[in-house]
Amino acid sequence: MPSRYLNFRCSVPWLILLLQTLFLSCFFFGFGVGDINSSLDSYPELQDVIHMLIFGFGFFLMVLRRYGFSSTGFNFLLIVLGVQCSVLLEYLFIFLVEQENEAGAVVSMTAVVISTGAVLGKANPVQLIVMTLVELIVFYVSRYINMTFLKVQEHLILMHVHLFGAYFGLALSSCFPEPPPGLDKNRSTPKSDLFSVLGAVFVWVYWPSFSSILAYIKVKAVLSASLALTVSAVAAFMLSALTSKDGKFRMSHIRSAVLAGGVTVASTEHLIQHPWIAMILGLLGSVITILGSHCLQRCFNPALKLQDTSGVHFTFGLPAVLGAVACVVLHVVEEGTETQLNDLSSVGYLIFYDVGAFCQTISTALITGFITGLILNIKLLKAVHVSKYFDDQFYWEVSF
Amino acid sequence: MPSRYLNFRCSVPWLILLLQTLFLSCFFFGFGVGDINSSLDSYPELQDVIHMLIFGFGFFLMVLRRYGFSSTGFNFLLIVLGVQCSVLLEYLFIFLVEQENEAGAVVSMTAVVISTGAVLGKANPVQLIVMTLVELIVFYVSRYINMTFLKVQEHLILMHVHLFGAYFGLALSSCFPEPPPGLDKNRSTPKSDLFSVLGAVFVWVYWPSFSSILAYIKVKAVLSASLALTVSAVAAFMLSALTSKDGKFRMSHIRSAVLAGGVTVASTEHLIQHPWIAMILGLLGSVITILGSHCLQRCFNPALKLQDTSGVHFTFGLPAVLGAVACVVLHVVEEGTETQLNDLSSVGYLIFYDVGAFCQTISTALITGFITGLILNIKLLKAVHVSKYFDDQFYWEVSF
Amino acid sequence: MPSRYLNFRCSVPWLILLLQTLFLSCFFFGFGVGDINSSLDSYPELQDVIHMLIFGFGFFLMVLRRYGFSSTGFNFLLIVLGVQCSVLLEYLFIFLVEQENEAGAVVSMTAVVISTGAVLGKANPVQLIVMTLVELIVFYVSRYINMTFLKVQEHLILMHVHLFGAYFGLALSSCFPEPPPGLDKNRSTPKSDLFSVLGAVFVWVYWPSFSSILAYIKVKAVLSASLALTVSAVAAFMLSALTSKDGKFRMSHIRSAVLAGGVTVASTEHLIQHPWIAMILGLLGSVITILGSHCLQRCFNPALKLQDTSGVHFTFGLPAVLGAVACVVLHVVEEGTETQLNDLSSVGYLIFYDVGAFCQTISTALITGFITGLILNIKLLKAVHVSKYFDDQFYWEVSF
Repeated sequence: MPSRYLNFRCSVPWLILLLQTLFLSCFFFGFGVGDINSSLDSYPELQDVIHMLIFGFGFFLMVLRRYGFSSTGFNFLLIVLGVQCSVLLEYLFIFLVEQENEAGAVVSMTAVVISTGAVLGKANPVQLIVMTLVELIVFYVSRYINMTFLKVQEHLILMHVHLFGAYFGLALSSCFPEPPPGLDKNRSTPKSDLFSVLGAVFVWVYWPSFSSILAYIKVKAVLSASLALTVSAVAAFMLSALTSKDGKFRMSHIRSAVLAGGVTVASTEHLIQHPWIAMILGLLGSVITILGSHCLQRCFNPALKLQDTSGVHFTFGLPAVLGAVACVVLHVVEEGTETQLNDLSSVGYLIFYDVGAFCQTISTALITGFITGLILNIKLLKAVHVSKYFDDQFYWEVSF
Repeated sequence: MPSRYLNFRCSVPWLILLLQTLFLSCFFFGFGVGDINSSLDSYPELQDVIHMLIFGFGFFLMVLRRYGFSSTGFNFLLIVLGVQCSVLLEYLFIFLVEQENEAGAVVSMTAVVISTGAVLGKANPVQLIVMTLVELIVFYVSRYINMTFLKVQEHLILMHVHLFGAYFGLALSSCFPEPPPGLDKNRSTPKSDLFSVLGAVFVWVYWPSFSSILAYIKVKAVLSASLALTVSAVAAFMLSALTSKDGKFRMSHIRSAVLAGGVTVASTEHLIQHPWIAMILGLLGSVITILGSHCLQRCFNPALKLQDTSGVHFTFGLPAVLGAVACVVLHVVEEGTETQLNDLSSVGYLIFYDVGAFCQTISTALITGFITGLILNIKLLKAVHVSKYFDDQFYWEVSF
Repeated sequence: MPSRYLNFRCSVPWLILLLQTLFLSCFFFGFGVGDINSSLDSYPELQDVIHMLIFGFGFFLMVLRRYGFSSTGFNFLLIVLGVQCSVLLEYLFIFLVEQENEAGAVVSMTAVVISTGAVLGKANPVQLIVMTLVELIVFYVSRYINMTFLKVQEHLILMHVHLFGAYFGLALSSCFPEPPPGLDKNRSTPKSDLFSVLGAVFVWVYWPSFSSILAYIKVKAVLSASLALTVSAVAAFMLSALTSKDGKFRMSHIRSAVLAGGVTVASTEHLIQHPWIAMILGLLGSVITILGSHCLQRCFNPALKLQDTSGVHFTFGLPAVLGAVACVVLHVVEEGTETQLNDLSSVGYLIFYDVGAFCQTISTALITGFITGLILNIKLLKAVHVSKYFDDQFYWEVSF
């Protein structure tokens, strides 16, 4: 179909050029280098997060046998485009809520990278770029609501990143047509599995930097994240051998469960007073991920005709939900022991705000994700035919 | 043999669960996050060491053609399990000798990772986990003896890590049955060679951080390590072209010799007054490694029926012995020039302590390593049959 | 030809040994560790630059299908040899101009690494080692001329590194005989392309550290470099889809253009007052690289019988020229607005110095590069026959 290729050339480069010109004009009329002098203090942590996004998630997404170029390449393209958009939104945000947070621009990109995983191999670059822009804008709106009306602290944004990214991606993927059964290209090879696990371990290693970049008490965030990640890595091996056929280890289990602890404690680190709490949360995160991966892939996904290519629902979604539950429980326990249960109404308010922020985030993600999915599949954006799914050769010049 | 697989499932996950519960209880009854507030100061160096252990050694061990999953996977499992055990032992240790040293917990793990290299492909996960626990406990006991009775300074622990790890692993490997001759699976491919050398270079790059993490004068440790590593990398290429057939370079030579300089100066950096001393030690380290690799593989190993899969004896063992000798020589020269040879008895005492600590460490490693090897091969731990050596498919679900 | 191999063994190891002995003697008679105490302040940045050189450029050069071992291996060998030579030259330099700059020794190595790319697969190790020494000495002489006679500031050395490296390598490669047309070995495979792009992205990630290591105002250097790199990464995707057949992305385009922004702003960061200037320079850098890659490969290189194996001319050369032009323009605009165009002579002097430094650097690079190329092809250095080009098996023991 040479006509498709020509059409494709007519859209992608011009869309990118349009966006880049827009960003350039915003920077031109916007702000000077002098305004962002303070951002070098957290340069090492910021660099860690950028490594994590580009290399960690780039390899993490390299799970399909014939989609290695696109997985890493489009991940990189979305990050360099999205970060500019995110920096501009962050400045708009400062204007609205009068809080400055440069690192937030990079951290917000995690939502986009997670969502990409759900539609991996199914969305073309035009769809991915539109998705990036819409998702970032909606995420900043959701953050604004949480901060202004539900008084959630700025650094708890981390929880929303994983929760939002996973459920936005999931709602999005429900609008894409399913690939035909028996397709070979959406399976993994031992090599792609190995790269994918290496990517997950790369994310794992940099996670404490990611967790602490926005935290008030950095040492606490680093320690909680490290302990939870360590325990969930141990639990990943244990549960993989328990649940797989023949008692062997399975790479895809370890790839998902190794990060569960980090996702779970991301939103509760300020409430963790003892190391064993972080460890138990890491353990529970792993359990919910491995059990979730079995239940979702067998019952939930076929029933809803979902195809979550790289498993973001159980890798990031379920542990983030567990983290939100843990946040409420820990809040109640802390307040309960402090107030001696005299002032039940204050505990009630607290739970109301926690639950409210959680529900607002997840419902915004699901609703806007679904709407974005519908928009992405209009004819203008040239959705890829299912027969061209999961294939590098559709997007890249591959010379053997 | 499906019965073996079922047995395997009955042991690994439950052993991991038991250990994790034990660690969790220790943390529960043990100490709070508040106690380890100081550990964020060395966070960047600690992160470097963790990268080195997980990625550097993970790839370094990826030397066998059909054992890539297990090399990196089990290395990761042992690190996440061992670090928890090591942190608990470190706290027990503080209680005994009243010296605090969080980084020591991560540095001690190096011994385990080195030992793993000697039994790579021959030990099953149960054996590896038991080995990790026993080795860490014995290493802390050996450290305690060195510190209390032989007055070795805390940061010289580094020497003992490589020496202990290599000879413990070597003694261990002597208890495992030899693989049949003519086996194809214990050879390397060009790709596994390349990955293994990349792992070694990764370790090489992070070595100065590793060397300086416990040193009193960090800049001296970084400089000595950098110079010694640079010279031994140069010497590795030189000696590889000199000793190999046809004068070509051999990847396995470079892989071993590139680190020799770092191992050699690890224990002497506090005594190095001039850069050229570090450079000569790096050169000698490389020479002893390359010559050692030829002698050991042809004469020593066949005579003792040893099979040191990834060559830890000449990569870490011999340079560490050279480092111990250099330590004595430099001590004598320093004291000799200071005391004008008037007070020979003080020099004698110094040599006595140095040689004593070296002999204690190496003999403890050899004896306990051999005993551990015998324990590991009892029927309960289900030693792998030689026909299943060096094979990922025995432990991992591999789908093509 | 076994005789060739024997000859090869007679030259490489002894040359390395001779050089290493020379360096060791210089260090012995030279300076002590005490003198370089200050160098630990920039240890994290220096480590970033070393990662960039060893891993980034090592993978970046892995572009040929059968030359992976040599690309990474020789790159590593040249860095460990060259850094010692560079440190000694830096100390000689301090003696001459009374300015100390330890990081400069590592930064100067970039020139050698870039030049290597132009003769990748064609030069044997002896030629590469001689090239490294000659290039470093000439580069320090060129720096000395620029600093003493043309009053260029020390940290603007960065520009000269890319400019000098690219044109030295280009002039060098013109002296090597061309490979026969239709050779298969100088093409890339999808895997080598992927590794090469990953190397480029690795360099991309560490570039801000590289840019800021010598800068006076670090935050400005980091921000300018980050913005320029981000925009040139976006532009790389855009231009690749625009210029390639069928509108698909091409890995080799992205590999070259992704770094263009960094090279362009390296020499102008002290003059960039607004973020949009850095962004526009990044965009122009990408455009010139992609257009250059088409023009040069079709017209310029065949006409001059050049074969620039890894495309250093358009990857580093052209953006560096653009950077030099931008430097003059920005200088004129800045001075013009400041002096109200009253004192045109001062602007004239400024332009004279800028243009002078640029012309001096590029002409020194071209002339000495050409002379070095002639020297390298004398019989003594045993130039490789064209039939043995681009082949690992000529230098490495490869066992399948």
